[in-house]
Amino acid sequence: MRDERAVTERLRTATVVPPGSPLVLGIGDDCAVYRPRGSADDLLFTADMFIEGTHFHRETHKPAEAGRKALVRSLSDIAAMGGSPRFCLVSLAVPSWANASWVDRFFDGVLQLASATGAILAGGDLSHSEILACDVTVCGAVPRGTALRRDGARPGDSIYVSGTLGGSTLGLATLKGKARKRHLHPEPRLALGRFLREKLRATAAMDISDGLSLDLRRLCLASCAGAEIVAPPRFPGASLEQALHGGEEYELLFTVRPGTKVPDDFDGLPLTRIGAIAPREAGEVLLDGNPLPPRGYDHFSGRAGRTEHTD
Amino acid sequence: MRDERAVTERLRTATVVPPGSPLVLGIGDDCAVYRPRGSADDLLFTADMFIEGTHFHRETHKPAEAGRKALVRSLSDIAAMGGSPRFCLVSLAVPSWANASWVDRFFDGVLQLASATGAILAGGDLSHSEILACDVTVCGAVPRGTALRRDGARPGDSIYVSGTLGGSTLGLATLKGKARKRHLHPEPRLALGRFLREKLRATAAMDISDGLSLDLRRLCLASCAGAEIVAPPRFPGASLEQALHGGEEYELLFTVRPGTKVPDDFDGLPLTRIGAIAPREAGEVLLDGNPLPPRGYDHFSGRAGRTEHTD
Repeated sequence: MRDERAVTERLRTATVVPPGSPLVLGIGDDCAVYRPRGSADDLLFTADMFIEGTHFHRETHKPAEAGRKALVRSLSDIAAMGGSPRFCLVSLAVPSWANASWVDRFFDGVLQLASATGAILAGGDLSHSEILACDVTVCGAVPRGTALRRDGARPGDSIYVSGTLGGSTLGLATLKGKARKRHLHPEPRLALGRFLREKLRATAAMDISDGLSLDLRRLCLASCAGAEIVAPPRFPGASLEQALHGGEEYELLFTVRPGTKVPDDFDGLPLTRIGAIAPREAGEVLLDGNPLPPRGYDHFSGRAGRTEHTD
Repeated sequence: MRDERAVTERLRTATVVPPGSPLVLGIGDDCAVYRPRGSADDLLFTADMFIEGTHFHRETHKPAEAGRKALVRSLSDIAAMGGSPRFCLVSLAVPSWANASWVDRFFDGVLQLASATGAILAGGDLSHSEILACDVTVCGAVPRGTALRRDGARPGDSIYVSGTLGGSTLGLATLKGKARKRHLHPEPRLALGRFLREKLRATAAMDISDGLSLDLRRLCLASCAGAEIVAPPRFPGASLEQALHGGEEYELLFTVRPGTKVPDDFDGLPLTRIGAIAPREAGEVLLDGNPLPPRGYDHFSGRAGRTEHTD
């Protein structure tokens, strides 16, 4: 199978967005951005699949945890662009092993987080299938022209991450303690995303869904620059490898202009400077002065080097 | 497995749309309707899955046909509400049997129809999976407050269908001739939908995706009325059963006020009066004076009586 980058690049190239289109940002960022005629808001759109055997196993995720996490993946993309969720569409294909109670509890998980974040369940589709397959589309809103994108970082900008990294991968490996909770119950950083947009005026942002090394490379590619970083803050017990390359963190990676006063934490969540954007080859990332290979997980091919469609 | 109606009813009940919400129509119609702050347009949203073994078989659908049809399902919902497509999100989970060429040709089918209808590919997700699973979200637009809904039909309104019915089911059974093409290559009735909204001011509309008997019952339930019809026009070679209960027609079912002058055809597509809305129990449909049971296909449970989430 060709890797995801090849498919995405082909789709991006094949898709012509006419000048003046209300679609102001298409394939290639965390969300697409649509500007409704006459509106004061821009709308953000993202879709994320949640597939049995690829994104979760029924042995490890309780149904409500699976439903919640299926929604988190898209909410995290809305957070990364500084948006407020407005509604979601949930499509669910159900295999025979999932009985009525399982489906009810899956939607309990969806509805609880939807209600807490303002992502009103507006529709979707239901079907049967041989495996459980879910796809969640979320719409969010930002004031016109203010969405945080990947392509605004400039050499000299400081690079930050929220929280600590590696916990989700550690939790997947051990299924124990706080790391397990971290893996099964991630938090979309919606309030932080709005803070980055409104108060810090971040120059670029994205969520860490496939690993810092791969996601920072994507941010750098989009911004036509490189980066020089040090080791990021680690989740207790996580290895440096897990912190650098582990996916499903759903923390935010962002950049700010030099001199921007960034607090040490946001509502208790640490914000840590890990380096700066550098005038290097686009996508080149150095860790302590040495090249950092992008090794995050490629959901599509099982290989590294994934660039997502939108994710 | 509980049937889809039970799941949908539970979700509809559990989802509270606050008064004044920009989500002006949620679960239960062909599309959700969102009213962006300050905009002259309402936006329509629908998501439809396209699952191997449920909605298609790789032996019968060429990859480009599969991609095209995955998009048709959602475009038809936009047509049913009188909308113009604006963009789409395509999520695709790919199994090992689908090689790079298959995926490329699948997206050829998507992109060709997307380009022809204005549904710019704006994003989505790519993943691997044990079976091929696709979910397509389409956004369409209508001038504010003008979306065609299911709930506007009133006793005395005339009931019409576009085209002829039963061809898709016939084509699935025989895989021969024009019926085969009808099954593999359905047309979303976008221009007709706009005509119904702008010129005929239809009181209600929906697309026939799960069979006339089931879909008309849904329209009647939403409109709190019954219907009295005669046999609909049949696709050449299709049986009355196929015309009454066969799904995947993607023709439009609509109602107009008594006295509305409806042309015999729209751009060559027949428009046929099949009866009238009647002051009967909600959802009660009579064919030639006898009760017509809703027997359309239930994608979710394999049983009749499906009410979709949004579809």
